[in-house]
Amino acid sequence: MPKTLFKVDLTKPMEEQEVPGHNRWHPDIPAAVSVNPGDVFRIECKDWTDGQISNNDDPSDIRDVNLHRVHVLSGPIHVNGVKPGDLLVVDLLDMGALPDSEWGFNGIFDRQNGGGFLTNHYPEAAKSIWDFHGIYTSSRHIPGVKFPGIIHPGLIGVAPSHEMLDTWNQREKALVDTDPGRVPELATLPNPHSAVLGNVKGAEFDRIAREGARTVPPRENGGNCDIKNLSKGSRIYFPVFVDGAKLSMGDLHFSQGDGEISFCGGIEMAGWIDIHVEVIKGGMEKYSIFNNPVFKPGPVEPRFSDYLIFEGISVDEFTGKQHYLDAHIAYRRACLNAIDFLKTQGYSGEQAYMLLSTAPVEGRISGIVDIPNACCTVAIPTEIFDYDIRPKLI
Amino acid sequence: MPKTLFKVDLTKPMEEQEVPGHNRWHPDIPAAVSVNPGDVFRIECKDWTDGQISNNDDPSDIRDVNLHRVHVLSGPIHVNGVKPGDLLVVDLLDMGALPDSEWGFNGIFDRQNGGGFLTNHYPEAAKSIWDFHGIYTSSRHIPGVKFPGIIHPGLIGVAPSHEMLDTWNQREKALVDTDPGRVPELATLPNPHSAVLGNVKGAEFDRIAREGARTVPPRENGGNCDIKNLSKGSRIYFPVFVDGAKLSMGDLHFSQGDGEISFCGGIEMAGWIDIHVEVIKGGMEKYSIFNNPVFKPGPVEPRFSDYLIFEGISVDEFTGKQHYLDAHIAYRRACLNAIDFLKTQGYSGEQAYMLLSTAPVEGRISGIVDIPNACCTVAIPTEIFDYDIRPKLI
Amino acid sequence: MPKTLFKVDLTKPMEEQEVPGHNRWHPDIPAAVSVNPGDVFRIECKDWTDGQISNNDDPSDIRDVNLHRVHVLSGPIHVNGVKPGDLLVVDLLDMGALPDSEWGFNGIFDRQNGGGFLTNHYPEAAKSIWDFHGIYTSSRHIPGVKFPGIIHPGLIGVAPSHEMLDTWNQREKALVDTDPGRVPELATLPNPHSAVLGNVKGAEFDRIAREGARTVPPRENGGNCDIKNLSKGSRIYFPVFVDGAKLSMGDLHFSQGDGEISFCGGIEMAGWIDIHVEVIKGGMEKYSIFNNPVFKPGPVEPRFSDYLIFEGISVDEFTGKQHYLDAHIAYRRACLNAIDFLKTQGYSGEQAYMLLSTAPVEGRISGIVDIPNACCTVAIPTEIFDYDIRPKLI
Amino acid sequence: MPKTLFKVDLTKPMEEQEVPGHNRWHPDIPAAVSVNPGDVFRIECKDWTDGQISNNDDPSDIRDVNLHRVHVLSGPIHVNGVKPGDLLVVDLLDMGALPDSEWGFNGIFDRQNGGGFLTNHYPEAAKSIWDFHGIYTSSRHIPGVKFPGIIHPGLIGVAPSHEMLDTWNQREKALVDTDPGRVPELATLPNPHSAVLGNVKGAEFDRIAREGARTVPPRENGGNCDIKNLSKGSRIYFPVFVDGAKLSMGDLHFSQGDGEISFCGGIEMAGWIDIHVEVIKGGMEKYSIFNNPVFKPGPVEPRFSDYLIFEGISVDEFTGKQHYLDAHIAYRRACLNAIDFLKTQGYSGEQAYMLLSTAPVEGRISGIVDIPNACCTVAIPTEIFDYDIRPKLI
Repeated sequence: MPKTLFKVDLTKPMEEQEVPGHNRWHPDIPAAVSVNPGDVFRIECKDWTDGQISNNDDPSDIRDVNLHRVHVLSGPIHVNGVKPGDLLVVDLLDMGALPDSEWGFNGIFDRQNGGGFLTNHYPEAAKSIWDFHGIYTSSRHIPGVKFPGIIHPGLIGVAPSHEMLDTWNQREKALVDTDPGRVPELATLPNPHSAVLGNVKGAEFDRIAREGARTVPPRENGGNCDIKNLSKGSRIYFPVFVDGAKLSMGDLHFSQGDGEISFCGGIEMAGWIDIHVEVIKGGMEKYSIFNNPVFKPGPVEPRFSDYLIFEGISVDEFTGKQHYLDAHIAYRRACLNAIDFLKTQGYSGEQAYMLLSTAPVEGRISGIVDIPNACCTVAIPTEIFDYDIRPKLI
Repeated sequence: MPKTLFKVDLTKPMEEQEVPGHNRWHPDIPAAVSVNPGDVFRIECKDWTDGQISNNDDPSDIRDVNLHRVHVLSGPIHVNGVKPGDLLVVDLLDMGALPDSEWGFNGIFDRQNGGGFLTNHYPEAAKSIWDFHGIYTSSRHIPGVKFPGIIHPGLIGVAPSHEMLDTWNQREKALVDTDPGRVPELATLPNPHSAVLGNVKGAEFDRIAREGARTVPPRENGGNCDIKNLSKGSRIYFPVFVDGAKLSMGDLHFSQGDGEISFCGGIEMAGWIDIHVEVIKGGMEKYSIFNNPVFKPGPVEPRFSDYLIFEGISVDEFTGKQHYLDAHIAYRRACLNAIDFLKTQGYSGEQAYMLLSTAPVEGRISGIVDIPNACCTVAIPTEIFDYDIRPKLI
Repeated sequence: MPKTLFKVDLTKPMEEQEVPGHNRWHPDIPAAVSVNPGDVFRIECKDWTDGQISNNDDPSDIRDVNLHRVHVLSGPIHVNGVKPGDLLVVDLLDMGALPDSEWGFNGIFDRQNGGGFLTNHYPEAAKSIWDFHGIYTSSRHIPGVKFPGIIHPGLIGVAPSHEMLDTWNQREKALVDTDPGRVPELATLPNPHSAVLGNVKGAEFDRIAREGARTVPPRENGGNCDIKNLSKGSRIYFPVFVDGAKLSMGDLHFSQGDGEISFCGGIEMAGWIDIHVEVIKGGMEKYSIFNNPVFKPGPVEPRFSDYLIFEGISVDEFTGKQHYLDAHIAYRRACLNAIDFLKTQGYSGEQAYMLLSTAPVEGRISGIVDIPNACCTVAIPTEIFDYDIRPKLI
Repeated sequence: MPKTLFKVDLTKPMEEQEVPGHNRWHPDIPAAVSVNPGDVFRIECKDWTDGQISNNDDPSDIRDVNLHRVHVLSGPIHVNGVKPGDLLVVDLLDMGALPDSEWGFNGIFDRQNGGGFLTNHYPEAAKSIWDFHGIYTSSRHIPGVKFPGIIHPGLIGVAPSHEMLDTWNQREKALVDTDPGRVPELATLPNPHSAVLGNVKGAEFDRIAREGARTVPPRENGGNCDIKNLSKGSRIYFPVFVDGAKLSMGDLHFSQGDGEISFCGGIEMAGWIDIHVEVIKGGMEKYSIFNNPVFKPGPVEPRFSDYLIFEGISVDEFTGKQHYLDAHIAYRRACLNAIDFLKTQGYSGEQAYMLLSTAPVEGRISGIVDIPNACCTVAIPTEIFDYDIRPKLI
């Protein structure tokens, strides 16, 4: 077992950990640990909410969650000798749940506190607890399904430069300014409330907390990409923007459907990742990787061979309004079609919504040029159900 | 070999075929042929442009294409006894190119005549010709790649009801009216120019041509979904809106990348499909399949195990403007990132663009809730290249 | 469609074809056609029995089959410039049934005329006819199963040198001499009865017919390997023993289970193969490929994800005698275990036997060193059945 | 993490463990632990040799290994309420190496002490040490390869009845008696030397040690099947021969090639397995599972898409003698052909031998009826090599 470089105690909040992590992006958050290219090490992570959600049947903790607290991250990890312009190569050698915490949660956020992809259809908080049975998971709240996990860090990224951080904050503020009072909000702007910034203290804390970008969106540094295929055995090529790269990670999922549509989210869990790092000097220019990380998925994803696939197009389901090649709406319609079908199989809408958010469903942009309709699809592996859900000829 | 119920002569335009097909959606286009549930039969199809593109190195035919002519479809096929409210079950038993036409084309449309996903980056017409070698294809215009096809009909659908047709025409007109002079246009509205309507003549022709919906977008009836996974061995469940369902199909692709990003399109070809039809009486209600077809993919898709995956987020590449969970922009950025990388491997931007449109790349909606950025990915199977394109550690 | 270089007329026996093929291995059978490295061409093939089996429900043609006639092959194909010591590279670009012959057969040979893997259990002739539905097949004689084909030539090989032919004849005669009267026989020795040798006539015919090796076993030249994974898109590297290599092929199967246990065999059919040839000069020495061909399988094999796997060990089922690491017996026991299970699902033993011989079951040598038992397994994809055959907990 | 019901201390031999396991099969070895149907629990296992092999470069420990000591097993586990005639359902929920022992070994046994599949070609002891990097492994002794593990218990089985044990001992003795002095021996007969029998003492120990079957071969009870696909997520259906079934397991492999050809063996390791058990009352009769276990493989096996496949036939490589449908010889010839090829890629014969024994190569019985040659194949995934090993056209 590689040496654990970042440990977590699940009974304590992130700021009280022996070495605290952080929940904002900022180049001035000091490294929690440093490693060399070639090193292999283990990183432990708390769940993204910092332990706010309990293993019970009451969704009030989902409803009342403090979203200023998310995502609590492990890091930053300084990789010695790595410079802006390099590519940081990160191998996710293996991942798992912590031994005494082999369960995870999924939830539907309340429309007034977080929302989600289908918040206008399912505005009230709900929760499903998922128990892990080795490689499999099942939920007492969604009967009749069992599937192998495809464990991944929902969030892994490097620190932005000061210049990049400024760009982020400006462009996101400009978006929020188009509709400042919207619920749910259009973006999560910097906010010192519940900020955790490693061991930074005093005025420096206040400055960084005021400037630090929230961790919710994926950005040029990777971050909260929520890519389910970034699983065991993956290799990621990160562009590097600051000395040492300053890698951080968290928000582990035991499983997730493409889109992470309920926002809360995949099957959220605490856990560990074994990491190997290398560097490609000058790799950003050499491979033209400037804007976002590039990755190779691992070779042990669960294998399915039979799917039921639902399509959606860019027409708003409430108004019937035609939108222009809008893949967001098309995917929403595909998911709603899938939920309608799952309701004929005995699930409630909320159960089906949480199932699409947690099971290894595949969300595709199938056609993006056939004006005015994008065509998106969501593919559900039929083998995750206890019984045959396919429409019968007779 | 099942009996061919719809034949095409590639030397003649669609209206001169022995039994002509059609290129508009309208419930009053009479059936070209009728079949019974349980029947197996072969349908031949012209390429979507009705033969306007030649197997040569000159892209002027792409540039000057008459887009009023698309998509020439084979059908409608009336399935006896099928009624609105039923599900029409369509098995795509097998597909192939026509024996004397074992090639296909891909192109970039001119910004002034068609455009495409990246038309602001690649506004000028280009063309690539793809030769078929059994299950494989390669192009003299894009060296160093060879891949197995995943043949599928870009377009397959049933006829709309009159009421549904009215809805389509109204909602699409409302969209066009928001920016009527836009180039490329926002949607393709009904237009009698170059309409082909089977054997309909005279005033009836004029009426249908005036009312008939264009075939470009996918809609509730299926239609031009351009789903690459609708390949050999797939089973589709169509909601039925008119007596006999009136199934039509065309726009065959030897291969296509998710999104069909160049718009012209996949590897476009003429070909044949062997079809088996069944009916599930009252299936729309029973399975809650009202809005779009549902399908099961076939079991013989090409198998890859190694991918290079590029990410993109909802920030406009020209202005840096932040958009709200815009999966269209996120997928565009992912594709542009992939093209940037492919340019470091010796391809021109146009070649890379056409490659993403034709090769079996997977386009995913990975995260759709992490405000304000959607995260979309495009996964390129590295095994389609003659040499190892992965970034090297040394 | 590539040019057809070898055509067959299914209404005529092989010797009456316009250009007849052959059914013996001998270096002096003249080439039927010649090609150049780089060429692509089509070869048509009769079924392995030369049309002795009819599409009906009567197994008497299986019982009475003339096995001196097998396997009728298309070829030899002379590849210009290829010399002994080279590797002949053969790409199987695509394969299919002949348009008017979309069915195949499987049978159990009578113990007195052919036998098979389980002939002591199932000594009487039986037959199953399989209809092709595009990529799928099913049989009116084995209800409840449908599966995609994995089409392949059961037999493809190059001509032996005179020296190699002598070696074959000597070693096989020595085996037969150990038990000359055995039924079924231990090997099929040269026999002029029903020989077909292209256009060879007279004394030369008699000599070659007397010397020519039978085509039943696979040998150093490839030949009747019956490898189901040698399917669409495969590339084979053949060692070359005579000028021009003299490639021949036949015995096409729409599908086959590993082992081809019923001997007659897979789903036997007439059909066509599109071939591409290349040469690696001096490749035998360079890659140390002297004894048998080497190949890469194609990328479009049917995809399954759920199997039921049966084990067998090297203990004779009749006597209980322990054998030493005998993989033949171990595989037989695995197959018998599978048949026992399938009988609990409503199949007769003969149906189950033919099903294992035709469906894409995988036969593995799992352990070959654990004295004294080999452990072999046969894996049945459960998805080929209409219903769930897996043992139920309740 | 499920409760650990059987713990091991790697610093102590099996008989000194707190609760010792056993290394013989006998119904009278008392249960080490008991569980109920429905229970989930963890079992720890020592490596099969009981810790005789060290992580160093000296193969003398392989050469001098005490084979009377193998296989040290964890168990027996008594499953309450399970009776002869039932099926014991065992789910392998997850498996892994022990945290402080993340390495394994493979070796070639000396011809005088163990031997192996190719002992006549490679008669001297050799060793390769494999380090685990998360899901991957590589060896300092076999450069240029890295692959994901497919962890499995080489040995898992239930206790035989007294009657079954007698049958085993008689049939194996009869085999040995055919050539009593053979080296390597034909079978491993009961032998009290180095026996470990849980807490059994005194005269009872002597009796059981004298009668107990050795664990080397797979038999009706499962046992040392060495099936690499019995990996994470598998479900096994065991026939039950004694009250409580008395399940035992050990001989964990991080990876293994089909056949485990070097005999020592796969990548041998100590580790843990998480188990879930259920029972199907009367299941042996209901599903006709009497002779050997049946299983379903798990869904997360490593995924490869490109293989190089080598064939072999039933002709002895030393004498040229023709054997009758001998799959053992055919697989040996396939492996020797693969080794010949790998030697052209820079490996020594011993390295190639150990590579085939450890990497996830697939061994198939392709044809078993084409008298007199069986055709076996060994498929090597080309993606495990650092560079492209496929023969080049130029």
